[in-house]
Amino acid sequence: MTEIKVAIIGGGGFMGYAHSLGWALAPITADTGATIRKAVLVEADEDRAKAAAKRLNWDEWSADWREVIARDDIDVVDIVTPPASHAEIAIAALAAGKHVFVEKPITNDLADADLMQDAAEKSSAVSQVGFNYRHAAAISFVKHMLDDGTLGHPLQFRAHYTQDVGALGRVLSGWRAKKGAGGSGVTGDIGSHIIDLASYLVGDIESVTAIIGAKDPAENSAWLSDDQRREGQYLDDAALWMTKFSNGAIGSFAATVYASGRKNRMFFELECTGGTVEFDWNHSDEIKLSLVSDKPDQQGFRTVSLNENHEDYWYPLGGMGSGYIDDAALQLQKFVRAIVEGRAGSPSFADATRTQRVIEAVMRSADSHQWVNVDEVTA
Amino acid sequence: MTEIKVAIIGGGGFMGYAHSLGWALAPITADTGATIRKAVLVEADEDRAKAAAKRLNWDEWSADWREVIARDDIDVVDIVTPPASHAEIAIAALAAGKHVFVEKPITNDLADADLMQDAAEKSSAVSQVGFNYRHAAAISFVKHMLDDGTLGHPLQFRAHYTQDVGALGRVLSGWRAKKGAGGSGVTGDIGSHIIDLASYLVGDIESVTAIIGAKDPAENSAWLSDDQRREGQYLDDAALWMTKFSNGAIGSFAATVYASGRKNRMFFELECTGGTVEFDWNHSDEIKLSLVSDKPDQQGFRTVSLNENHEDYWYPLGGMGSGYIDDAALQLQKFVRAIVEGRAGSPSFADATRTQRVIEAVMRSADSHQWVNVDEVTA
Amino acid sequence: MTEIKVAIIGGGGFMGYAHSLGWALAPITADTGATIRKAVLVEADEDRAKAAAKRLNWDEWSADWREVIARDDIDVVDIVTPPASHAEIAIAALAAGKHVFVEKPITNDLADADLMQDAAEKSSAVSQVGFNYRHAAAISFVKHMLDDGTLGHPLQFRAHYTQDVGALGRVLSGWRAKKGAGGSGVTGDIGSHIIDLASYLVGDIESVTAIIGAKDPAENSAWLSDDQRREGQYLDDAALWMTKFSNGAIGSFAATVYASGRKNRMFFELECTGGTVEFDWNHSDEIKLSLVSDKPDQQGFRTVSLNENHEDYWYPLGGMGSGYIDDAALQLQKFVRAIVEGRAGSPSFADATRTQRVIEAVMRSADSHQWVNVDEVTA
Amino acid sequence: MTEIKVAIIGGGGFMGYAHSLGWALAPITADTGATIRKAVLVEADEDRAKAAAKRLNWDEWSADWREVIARDDIDVVDIVTPPASHAEIAIAALAAGKHVFVEKPITNDLADADLMQDAAEKSSAVSQVGFNYRHAAAISFVKHMLDDGTLGHPLQFRAHYTQDVGALGRVLSGWRAKKGAGGSGVTGDIGSHIIDLASYLVGDIESVTAIIGAKDPAENSAWLSDDQRREGQYLDDAALWMTKFSNGAIGSFAATVYASGRKNRMFFELECTGGTVEFDWNHSDEIKLSLVSDKPDQQGFRTVSLNENHEDYWYPLGGMGSGYIDDAALQLQKFVRAIVEGRAGSPSFADATRTQRVIEAVMRSADSHQWVNVDEVTA
Repeated sequence: MTEIKVAIIGGGGFMGYAHSLGWALAPITADTGATIRKAVLVEADEDRAKAAAKRLNWDEWSADWREVIARDDIDVVDIVTPPASHAEIAIAALAAGKHVFVEKPITNDLADADLMQDAAEKSSAVSQVGFNYRHAAAISFVKHMLDDGTLGHPLQFRAHYTQDVGALGRVLSGWRAKKGAGGSGVTGDIGSHIIDLASYLVGDIESVTAIIGAKDPAENSAWLSDDQRREGQYLDDAALWMTKFSNGAIGSFAATVYASGRKNRMFFELECTGGTVEFDWNHSDEIKLSLVSDKPDQQGFRTVSLNENHEDYWYPLGGMGSGYIDDAALQLQKFVRAIVEGRAGSPSFADATRTQRVIEAVMRSADSHQWVNVDEVTA
Repeated sequence: MTEIKVAIIGGGGFMGYAHSLGWALAPITADTGATIRKAVLVEADEDRAKAAAKRLNWDEWSADWREVIARDDIDVVDIVTPPASHAEIAIAALAAGKHVFVEKPITNDLADADLMQDAAEKSSAVSQVGFNYRHAAAISFVKHMLDDGTLGHPLQFRAHYTQDVGALGRVLSGWRAKKGAGGSGVTGDIGSHIIDLASYLVGDIESVTAIIGAKDPAENSAWLSDDQRREGQYLDDAALWMTKFSNGAIGSFAATVYASGRKNRMFFELECTGGTVEFDWNHSDEIKLSLVSDKPDQQGFRTVSLNENHEDYWYPLGGMGSGYIDDAALQLQKFVRAIVEGRAGSPSFADATRTQRVIEAVMRSADSHQWVNVDEVTA
Repeated sequence: MTEIKVAIIGGGGFMGYAHSLGWALAPITADTGATIRKAVLVEADEDRAKAAAKRLNWDEWSADWREVIARDDIDVVDIVTPPASHAEIAIAALAAGKHVFVEKPITNDLADADLMQDAAEKSSAVSQVGFNYRHAAAISFVKHMLDDGTLGHPLQFRAHYTQDVGALGRVLSGWRAKKGAGGSGVTGDIGSHIIDLASYLVGDIESVTAIIGAKDPAENSAWLSDDQRREGQYLDDAALWMTKFSNGAIGSFAATVYASGRKNRMFFELECTGGTVEFDWNHSDEIKLSLVSDKPDQQGFRTVSLNENHEDYWYPLGGMGSGYIDDAALQLQKFVRAIVEGRAGSPSFADATRTQRVIEAVMRSADSHQWVNVDEVTA
Repeated sequence: MTEIKVAIIGGGGFMGYAHSLGWALAPITADTGATIRKAVLVEADEDRAKAAAKRLNWDEWSADWREVIARDDIDVVDIVTPPASHAEIAIAALAAGKHVFVEKPITNDLADADLMQDAAEKSSAVSQVGFNYRHAAAISFVKHMLDDGTLGHPLQFRAHYTQDVGALGRVLSGWRAKKGAGGSGVTGDIGSHIIDLASYLVGDIESVTAIIGAKDPAENSAWLSDDQRREGQYLDDAALWMTKFSNGAIGSFAATVYASGRKNRMFFELECTGGTVEFDWNHSDEIKLSLVSDKPDQQGFRTVSLNENHEDYWYPLGGMGSGYIDDAALQLQKFVRAIVEGRAGSPSFADATRTQRVIEAVMRSADSHQWVNVDEVTA
């Protein structure tokens, strides 16, 4: 069996935890055709790199990502740095022939995303972006029912991603609070996940109309501190948008951080000709499913708990309780399989760049009060 | 105590049932300051009028609404005919000095609605339109929490009204299937209810952007028969729209009849600065409520079942199970109280005309692919 | 069509409201083969009788139930007085050849119940006891699925009926607080409903083992006032019991009034060889249904909203929201049909007497710490 | 920081996966004061031991547990072998001065459990049994609210643990299907978890009354194959029991494997003087909570999603989705902390032996049709 050696760039924060767990769990819960070696953890500060490597069980550490990328024995570069540095590292890694995994968003700069897409398309290596939710076992089940005809074709997709961090006065810090450094407000941060899911499950988004934020930025950007506001910083705290998909389906989306009572709730309903599915990340190993073909007196949403009959559910018994860590492992399993089998990553850099283009379209539509055609959005 | 004598125009169908039950229940469950006499039921066909009057316990019947309106002893005219005839009857009844209750929609023709609003404003009688949901005890509780500051001010309202009748191949008949005769598709039919609720709870809708129906009308107007389609009939089966409210709040709405598994589900979430409320007509005597002021480790949505601490809940014990009939009674109780106390009905003809104007704005925005300012919509 | 003239005995309280609404609604929502005349309302105090008759739309009133029972033109005697008087009135009414409807419990005295059962069995009139829940449309749907084999045969029934009135310090008054006058604590009051449902859906209860109340009556009878406790009054505020059914199924029951957050929640799960059903009165027009025959990857509980495909659901569209009043009408419709068709009422006096015997068995088992065989319980 | 070297005995099966993940995750998500070294994996077959060690990232492997226990450098012995071998290995490990973690059940033989309890009490090492659910973050939150008075004192506990494996014809294999080898049917297998939780949250169970299984073992032991039945094998597939706790609270329990639609659903409601909590393992990072102290018109169950305000929730944001793996880590974190701080494990061998005694009481009560006092149950 192939051994794949991974270097993680920027692994000292939460995403370092998440990916470390994912890399550890990935080969345990499925046979991907490869074993994983957590080889090197890179952080700009060497002491921090060492501490993180020890805590997270990486063999080595380094403070120089360029040096690590130049090593012959490294197969995969996993980039979890702030978004503003993604393009430079990813393009360098692809140039060095490495398979590249980039945490989402691919970047917050559309021009950079285009460059990354180009680099990926010119490379024979596998590249993938960390939109983890599409790999959740529940989502795979929905995708499966779309592919095998159980659900018929999609008619309408409604999604919202809501959090209460702004309602509770929790403020952002670091790069997330700074537009220039990669912060993108709710649309790019949590909104991007539901755009990725829509693209994956329903199809290409053709055009959008949007509303962003609330009347008074100074008052309403719920997740900034007073100081940040005084500095003129502004990040949208709420966005609503509607879409037309190229296959005729229609969509409605919302993302807010001022939703009291919502704890990281990513939710969607997908109405199809053959049935409806409903998903709520707060109950991430369940799908609610209604089928037109059910007997008339038995119509209704069944709550399907993932179990051994579902792809990507690895426990011996349904209802054991999968969660964030399982999902972290699943997206890396898929990435490893793509490497082993020579397939494209999912989402690819091209997919994630299109998602970035939709985000940009949302922001431009909100500014212009016009429908925006996604294909016409240029950097 | 005053006795109020009611004549119902067009009482032979389901709304005749519903209003008859409402008029019977209204004085039993609350002291409105008046007793009700179900005096005359009017249907164009005399035999049908007689049969309905007997079945529904009305004292008399008639086949001539003009004659009934002319009677001195009648206090209230309750109009449940198809929408296309609402304007003529209501304006005549107001001219005759009667209090007028009109089943929703006020009419499907904006010019007619304007005339009705004029007539109502010139009259000292009370007029009200049958948007029943705003009078449900659960909605009164939400309104109460908005008025007393519990919820703070509204930020975002998201609503959908979904049914499966189109998904299951159930087709419309009668006037509902004919645009000219009053049929208005999902926006006017079920969409109007969530516009009314939004206006009542959040405030005036200032502007809208909208998508109506699906790509191919011939295929997608889910609730018409093949014959109806051949006749060129078309009624939108799905609509999505977003709104800006004049107070700065933003909104997102959906109405569809092709939603497998949804049985008359009217649903909304209202995010406010002080908390969030969620309501689902399928669980019509519950409100889900989250409050920012809750302790950090106890944040979450509580499911509040209506009980004796809530206005308009008339049972001796919470959780006894109120439903459609209770709501039918509540809206008539409120109407009777408005008569007794000399207040305006809710919603008034002016309110309902504005709702009609929003519906028209939705349809025009969908056609023009532009934001439409509601105030600029003329008949 | 036959006209059935009803006299109600004791109609001035809440049950007077409920039955009046039920009698009004019953002939509207279904064709029972008869029309109903709300003829006479009886209350011991004539002024109260008159006021109630006017408010609730009864033709006449009276202060003398014996006189009313003696009238030839009365067909049905509907008894909603406190339980202690049920036996005398019901036996007299049966002797006078009247059909008799008795609100639950049939009585709290087992010897009286035996006498009532005897009287009913000797009469050709129809008698029925007001266990309304078994007639709810959702329960009829469950019964239907048991009868037609959809669910297979019952294996295990778990039910609880929980309220928060005791938790919130709300105390009982009137006859309910006095054991001698008919009060029976949680077992007889709310527990009786789940015993009735179990008997109806699963079969005869053969034996029981039980725990009643808590350690210290003075402290724990949650729904009595301090004065009532000082007077030595005691009513159980919680009961748990398990049962063996004669068909081999097993059961577990709970009834409490000190359950914070529970608003009149009657709940059960019924596991059968073919599937499981779950019912919650707080969502009274839904059944949760899981079927063994579902595809392995689609197993799960579907939430079936009552709709036009279900017997006893009378609205034109699913999900319109039925509730307590609908249920009040349904049980009277069934009673009227039994009269018209010459069938036994459901539950009959015999059925309700057996339920009373099970209640007695629960109380004796709790005292004796032994399993009690229901057949061996004598008055 | 101390390094703790762990040997796992019997790590080739699912519990090997689960504990390996737990040991890996434990030091990452909390500071326990120690680092963990996954030192040796033991399986009777050396090839299997080696394969498992490699897959699960253990440093070494061995086919001889006695040899491993004898090593000086091993600090912890983690026993995940079938229950019948627990006593021998655990007692030997304690004798060798090792800290011992034993997967649940402690053993299925009460005499063995007594011996293990003795050995643990005579040792200064820490011993703990793998009742993982009590360490779930949601349960810790409930425990916290009991300890700090938020919930008042417990009145009633109702729990059920239901699965559908029997309903779907999935049969048991290996030691689980053999009573002699450690299989114990539903009471010992899944029932033990709710007994452990009850003991942890409510207090000591004093006495029980019980029903086990169904009428005909040959037909009804739902999770055995035909062959197993022919061999005379029998394992209860359903059990109901009620309890009195020594503090006056009362309890009701159910465990079944023939519950169509239930995927490993462990559920309880705990009614206390100050409020009620409800927990469902299928939504394992939520607690439903009702408080008597809530405003009268806001009474109801709030759904509290675990978040950064809850002990043992390690994610940066509420609602990220914890599950089985997180719980596996938590119980080992607690064990490591007990070692570092010199406290007793939870549950200790004594706690788990008492749980075993309750299980035995349930089985004896079902046989004798008598209440059984737990203290009087001897091996």
